[in-house]
Amino acid sequence: MIINIDRNSSSPIYLQITSQIREMILSGTLPEGYKLPPERKLAEVLEVNRSTVLNAYRELKADGFIGAHIGQGTVVLPVVKNNIQSNDHFQEPLQWRQLFSQNASRMREPLLRDLMELASRDDVISFAAGIADPNLYPLEEIDIIQQELIRGSNKAAFLHNPTEGYYPLRESISQMMRARGVFASPEEILVTSGAQQGLDVIARAFLDPGDIVIVEEPAFFCALQIFRASGARLIGVPMDDAGMRADILESLLTRYKPKLIYTLPTFQNPSGAVMDLERRRQLLDLAWRYQIPILEDDPYGELRYEGNKIPSLKAMDHHGCVLYLSTFSKIMFPGLRIGWLTASKPVIRQLGMVKQMEDLHAGSLAQCIYDEFLRKGLLEQHIKKVNKEYLLRRNAMISAMERFAPDNVSWNKPLGGFYIWCTVPETMIKSRLLMKAAEKKVAFVPGDAFYIDEQVQNQIRLNFSYHPPELIHEGVRRLMEAIEETLLEEKRGSSSKNINMKPIV
Amino acid sequence: MIINIDRNSSSPIYLQITSQIREMILSGTLPEGYKLPPERKLAEVLEVNRSTVLNAYRELKADGFIGAHIGQGTVVLPVVKNNIQSNDHFQEPLQWRQLFSQNASRMREPLLRDLMELASRDDVISFAAGIADPNLYPLEEIDIIQQELIRGSNKAAFLHNPTEGYYPLRESISQMMRARGVFASPEEILVTSGAQQGLDVIARAFLDPGDIVIVEEPAFFCALQIFRASGARLIGVPMDDAGMRADILESLLTRYKPKLIYTLPTFQNPSGAVMDLERRRQLLDLAWRYQIPILEDDPYGELRYEGNKIPSLKAMDHHGCVLYLSTFSKIMFPGLRIGWLTASKPVIRQLGMVKQMEDLHAGSLAQCIYDEFLRKGLLEQHIKKVNKEYLLRRNAMISAMERFAPDNVSWNKPLGGFYIWCTVPETMIKSRLLMKAAEKKVAFVPGDAFYIDEQVQNQIRLNFSYHPPELIHEGVRRLMEAIEETLLEEKRGSSSKNINMKPIV
Repeated sequence: MIINIDRNSSSPIYLQITSQIREMILSGTLPEGYKLPPERKLAEVLEVNRSTVLNAYRELKADGFIGAHIGQGTVVLPVVKNNIQSNDHFQEPLQWRQLFSQNASRMREPLLRDLMELASRDDVISFAAGIADPNLYPLEEIDIIQQELIRGSNKAAFLHNPTEGYYPLRESISQMMRARGVFASPEEILVTSGAQQGLDVIARAFLDPGDIVIVEEPAFFCALQIFRASGARLIGVPMDDAGMRADILESLLTRYKPKLIYTLPTFQNPSGAVMDLERRRQLLDLAWRYQIPILEDDPYGELRYEGNKIPSLKAMDHHGCVLYLSTFSKIMFPGLRIGWLTASKPVIRQLGMVKQMEDLHAGSLAQCIYDEFLRKGLLEQHIKKVNKEYLLRRNAMISAMERFAPDNVSWNKPLGGFYIWCTVPETMIKSRLLMKAAEKKVAFVPGDAFYIDEQVQNQIRLNFSYHPPELIHEGVRRLMEAIEETLLEEKRGSSSKNINMKPIV
Repeated sequence: MIINIDRNSSSPIYLQITSQIREMILSGTLPEGYKLPPERKLAEVLEVNRSTVLNAYRELKADGFIGAHIGQGTVVLPVVKNNIQSNDHFQEPLQWRQLFSQNASRMREPLLRDLMELASRDDVISFAAGIADPNLYPLEEIDIIQQELIRGSNKAAFLHNPTEGYYPLRESISQMMRARGVFASPEEILVTSGAQQGLDVIARAFLDPGDIVIVEEPAFFCALQIFRASGARLIGVPMDDAGMRADILESLLTRYKPKLIYTLPTFQNPSGAVMDLERRRQLLDLAWRYQIPILEDDPYGELRYEGNKIPSLKAMDHHGCVLYLSTFSKIMFPGLRIGWLTASKPVIRQLGMVKQMEDLHAGSLAQCIYDEFLRKGLLEQHIKKVNKEYLLRRNAMISAMERFAPDNVSWNKPLGGFYIWCTVPETMIKSRLLMKAAEKKVAFVPGDAFYIDEQVQNQIRLNFSYHPPELIHEGVRRLMEAIEETLLEEKRGSSSKNINMKPIV
């Protein structure tokens, strides 16, 4: 019996002893009935404490490898062989559903996937997905960049890159952030495989099951899904015209001890709302006083069609409470899957370790392409171009709403971003409206997906970035028709049993 | 006081009541001292069970929002405002380290990152990283494919794609798998952001903290890291010439109830070993009888330099126990981050939900590039080309070992893959050898990283795919010199206190 102890190992010594004896028993090196040395003797020879050997023997006993009888010492027990004797015992394939983890069971049916599928059907006018119009993609510029990359034999595009990102891209993003009023070194930037991964990495780095996350309500549904999947408990703060309500937030911070405050303060998804300057100051002040990190999600900040710029929370963050997340998906292409997080170096280091688990690093070719695009100054031009177009589309949607919407439908007029947030009559049953809209070949996202409890049934999100103005006009016409017909049918049929709304004294 | 109950919501009714009353209290709609209706009355009006209202009130009491006194009924308590009065209370920046999750604390220092960094330094001959030689990249073919993609206005390369992958690529992979003897429909394939993500998605879908995973020892260290990070307990099965030992495996299956068996059966990383046919049959039989999924990791299977092909476990899997994972990283580029998983449809669906959390989908441009490469039949050609070259490199390394290695160093001669697994004298201290090698500008991976307890200190992994034969020759010369010098220094100095190896009667 030979046992090797490595005192520099991170594995406790008793476990080293346990695993080596276990292996010797299983391999037959120590046969049934073999008498192990007394604890004291083994401890002496290995130069370890007697309690260490005691612990090892206890583990082996608990697992049924060895037994002790008074007078006989400690002996190796017979190794139990398989108690299932034949192949025929199981006829079924593996019971996969029973094998999945609890984590997996928290991952819900993929709303987003369905949305992406709907949007890709040619005959449907989709206001559902939140994506840029592919006809606006700057493909000519990208063509040139790709040729330069390959012909310049820039192998970085095909090689591994550091987990935190292709360094030149981190520099370019750092420059771009400076133009947005945020002074972050390249080392304070983590390139992620899209903003989705940014959310997931934050959730894994900060949240344990049972932790509390404060979110504004309504909120981006993918964020809600990810926080839920981590086992966190979500608590919502309602919004008013100035954004997340600070008075309610403060009461919640006092009462709960949240691990994170999640907000999308500029051209919010879904509401289009912008948090005002005073509210931003209040939020930062609260986060600082209660020592709670804020995750600022900012995919739409650059997509402003009127009014003056407002600084991001990160740009106003003097205490380093803000984790800033953004992406190229809304301003460029969703398919290249590149986003970024800005935070202090120790946070980036920890987030990098989580990201490394997930995919080692973001795609190198995609990182090289965006880097070149930024270095050539093309992004600013491109944003100017799309903002001009999206302004027309927003106006087209608003005009069509004004023309076709029945009296009991209302909406906001967002200054930027991708969405109009629309209130429909309370009595309307969501599933009926969805079906009616599908018949008329128009799609939208029902608002309940953006609420924690999915209670609010009378709102819908309409995207205006994907289709040109003519199609927006036609789509709104179809949708409003669908709303009117649904209301009419409901009036005719039995009244809603779905929503129970009663005033109480 | 108005309360809306949605009986179709997935949120329990008592929680709907709780959150709405909480919001009304925090917003001041229900002021301090406001008397809530008696439980029975509220239950009647809302048409819910009395116990539902009781539960809601109990939650609100527990959180200190309401209180009950005999004779007074249930009243709203004063809302506790912030008990921290001034900005000056905290002077420090956020205590980030205290804010990280337990999960995050299980993510260890990134060995792989360091390896990638070492390999990228020009003056070092690195046998450390397991990557293909960039000089063998088929860049001309890729250049043509990229031009075709852009000029053909294939916007799929820049748009969102389904989480499971770009469908044409799933078809191409399905075809390729057929050539490998695996009949899997495109729907049984999930495109991942590299094999790393495949491992992580499997871990998240199957493992809860405390679950047991069986691994062969030694094993691919990233897999060990990922399983550990999920909180699983790892149990190792030693290998012999035929692969993972089936007798020991069976005993472990009987005794523990593992959730997963992880194996890399063909040209294993790090040992280069190939599991033989008989052992493959035994492993499949055991997995089937004990109903444990096998994760077969197969990045190197196509990189065979001599001998006959051996079928993958998946190709021999009649019962559907095997989750098959592979990647383009070793046969093409690591930087495009594309791998794939093959499993039955319900498993792919669940894995897709996990993947969606992580990054929505793998990069579209990279998927389109690989799809075209496969459709043009270029992959087979490319593999033939690199296999010819890697054979030369393996031979160069073996010859150099034969020429320069001291007597007490031994090694295997792998038939494929990327690695030679080398045994050095037991007494050698790892850190000294690493330092000595660094001085001589040669790098390797110490073998302990491939063991669960990191106990085994006398093995090292040498990659032979990255450098041309001349550099391999020179690198081996330097490394063997480093080994001899380290041994000499240790003989001269005090003998090792590090490893304690004693025979016991």
